[in-house]
Amino acid sequence: MSDGYREMWRELGLDLKRHDELLASLQPVYQNMYLSQKNRPKAMGYYDFVVSEIHGIRIKELVDFRKKGGKVVATFCLYVPEELVLASGAVQIGLCGGANTTIEDAERDLPRNLCPLIKSSYGFKVSALCPYFAVSDLVVGETTCDGKKKMYELLGRRMPVYVVELPHKPYTKHARALWFEELKLLKERLEKLTGNKVTAESLRNAINLVNKKRRVLKRIFEARKARPSPISGKDAILVTQIAFYDDVTRFVEKTKELAEELEERVKKGVGVVDDNAPRIVVSGCPMAIPNWKLHHIVESSGAAIVAEESCTGSRYLNIGDINSSADSVDGLLKAISEAYLNIHCACFTPNDERVNDVVKMVEEFDADGVIHYNLHSCHPYSVEANKVVRALKENGIPAISIETDYSKEDVGQLTTRVEAFIEMLRK
Amino acid sequence: MSDGYREMWRELGLDLKRHDELLASLQPVYQNMYLSQKNRPKAMGYYDFVVSEIHGIRIKELVDFRKKGGKVVATFCLYVPEELVLASGAVQIGLCGGANTTIEDAERDLPRNLCPLIKSSYGFKVSALCPYFAVSDLVVGETTCDGKKKMYELLGRRMPVYVVELPHKPYTKHARALWFEELKLLKERLEKLTGNKVTAESLRNAINLVNKKRRVLKRIFEARKARPSPISGKDAILVTQIAFYDDVTRFVEKTKELAEELEERVKKGVGVVDDNAPRIVVSGCPMAIPNWKLHHIVESSGAAIVAEESCTGSRYLNIGDINSSADSVDGLLKAISEAYLNIHCACFTPNDERVNDVVKMVEEFDADGVIHYNLHSCHPYSVEANKVVRALKENGIPAISIETDYSKEDVGQLTTRVEAFIEMLRK
Repeated sequence: MSDGYREMWRELGLDLKRHDELLASLQPVYQNMYLSQKNRPKAMGYYDFVVSEIHGIRIKELVDFRKKGGKVVATFCLYVPEELVLASGAVQIGLCGGANTTIEDAERDLPRNLCPLIKSSYGFKVSALCPYFAVSDLVVGETTCDGKKKMYELLGRRMPVYVVELPHKPYTKHARALWFEELKLLKERLEKLTGNKVTAESLRNAINLVNKKRRVLKRIFEARKARPSPISGKDAILVTQIAFYDDVTRFVEKTKELAEELEERVKKGVGVVDDNAPRIVVSGCPMAIPNWKLHHIVESSGAAIVAEESCTGSRYLNIGDINSSADSVDGLLKAISEAYLNIHCACFTPNDERVNDVVKMVEEFDADGVIHYNLHSCHPYSVEANKVVRALKENGIPAISIETDYSKEDVGQLTTRVEAFIEMLRK
Repeated sequence: MSDGYREMWRELGLDLKRHDELLASLQPVYQNMYLSQKNRPKAMGYYDFVVSEIHGIRIKELVDFRKKGGKVVATFCLYVPEELVLASGAVQIGLCGGANTTIEDAERDLPRNLCPLIKSSYGFKVSALCPYFAVSDLVVGETTCDGKKKMYELLGRRMPVYVVELPHKPYTKHARALWFEELKLLKERLEKLTGNKVTAESLRNAINLVNKKRRVLKRIFEARKARPSPISGKDAILVTQIAFYDDVTRFVEKTKELAEELEERVKKGVGVVDDNAPRIVVSGCPMAIPNWKLHHIVESSGAAIVAEESCTGSRYLNIGDINSSADSVDGLLKAISEAYLNIHCACFTPNDERVNDVVKMVEEFDADGVIHYNLHSCHPYSVEANKVVRALKENGIPAISIETDYSKEDVGQLTTRVEAFIEMLRK
């Protein structure tokens, strides 16, 4: 990344010394995990560039946007509708952390046995290592899991935080009413932040724009159904990860190019692995950038990850195309609130919809097995793993359940388990 | 306990061999922790008897009640209103487990890093060691924490389970509406279970009865404000624990006797420790029977626990006297739903009310310090500990935060920390 950003980082209050180390450490990891892959789609060049500029060009854009009075809203969960944020004139970025570096910083305030995603994210704030935190005007949290919900209280001492309540038994009339009212309150909070009124027009435009983003991501997923898959799981998850913080219009345009290339490959039968490589669906916790650990282990073992049933995967796509035909703000908000309940998060109970989703995906993606992926100490997914794995086995689908974090300590052990599983799938 | 219960336990499907071992192991523990205490109130004889008959006489009553068509409803949380259960003609019992014995059984289905209360409770079901599970017709759970919420799904494979949604930002109009509607649905579920209609009269009577229970428990708490305290913390928490499963009318009567004795002691200045013994408020997770670990360590170190800010303590009392003057079921249900929001559970956000409660209790109970008590892997309380301890220190109140489970492994280490804290308070 250009040295020209140093002044910007200094102005944003980053810990420059540690920040240099962080960026320097990412480079060889990316080289090893990504750039060394064979036969990558050409269009991945854009995402490589985005990663190479991870704290550079996008931050510069956001800094410039704020200089002109723009506001940046940071989120940690799919359940905060980007449509609403965009309609208020703000920009939304995802702040989930996927790096181990900042966990020790977080543990000064947070208990050790909390999920690494929560600790990593909070740690990026307290360690002053994340320019995305630094350019955020407001964090919008949600009551999805205990860990995040309570972490937001501590984060609220350090920056403005607003929390939206998500019901956990979402299918009653009164739960839907609560969720709708919560989105209305969020709209008011965003209007207060930006000074802009959310109108039917601005909301409709935002819905249409974000629909485009989900649609193009869906094309990537559709292409992965081909045998052999035209893109590695590692590359595919990177695209999803970048979807959470890139400029939406540019992202849609660039990802269209990738989708076209993948569709072309599928027509020609071009893939990144051979036809016989076992095909894996990974199901479970989200993987925040740069958490590519499991994907790297699986694909280095000769299998291909063809889909992710996760927030950085199918759960995001399941929101689907939101109907933008209503002519009032409330009508459009209603459409948003209903569509978002298609995200089958483990925070819900009993959440059988998710279990069914995983089984269905195995068929649709012609997968040979499932790895249930659980971040250490994430209770919703770790307990639900039992139901998912049981349902898969009842359907004759091989499955293993793993629990891990962001450290390198268990890489050897994980590799052994994954290799044994893949070996079994080959038989 | 009389051998006459063996046939009953067999009929209830208990694992008799392990059950014998369990009961046999409780006896010396109770002797050592309870019966060896000096200068206990005479009225504690009743609670000693209840413990000596822990799986005997009360189970026999419930078995007989069911033979006559009665229904037993089991709960894990204060937030399921006993008033409603009683008004439907059912009996409510708390099922929270406080023993280490069954945790290994639970870990066959549940992840290891889940709170011991959840694992112990679930383990009592799967190991067939708990006659209270065996006499329960329905478990009513709630969406308070991730661990319990998801455990109920697995429990639901083994017995009927119904889950009530509790909002986590409870102070908006729509959250209150959701909570009220959830209680209405619970009422319908209970009516279906028992075949009885909940009427304004039955609900009013139940409110008045449970008010009496909380009132007499409040008298025990009031008496503990005296210096020296007329009752040990260990004895006091036992009384609260038994309040969750004893027959309500008998419990009120017996606890009145204890309250009178304590008030008499206070008048005479009779206590269980000397005037200079440091006075401790324990704040945090509930302690389910027979979890007396921390109380025993603290009181063996020469301090007195004068109050518990917990579900097995002040949070239960904070529900207060529920107004029973409304003349409709809905009106009474409204009063219940509002009163229960006085329980300041860490599942709420931001929950500053609880932080204020703890600070206030230190003053009211003339306490010298606070021990924040956290069960291992309980995220709501472990993250909130940070806020509580910080608020206490800002108010000049000495505080430590401990995290533990039901095992004996950390007793030595905990004792060292507790003794050092108490030594500091003496200065």
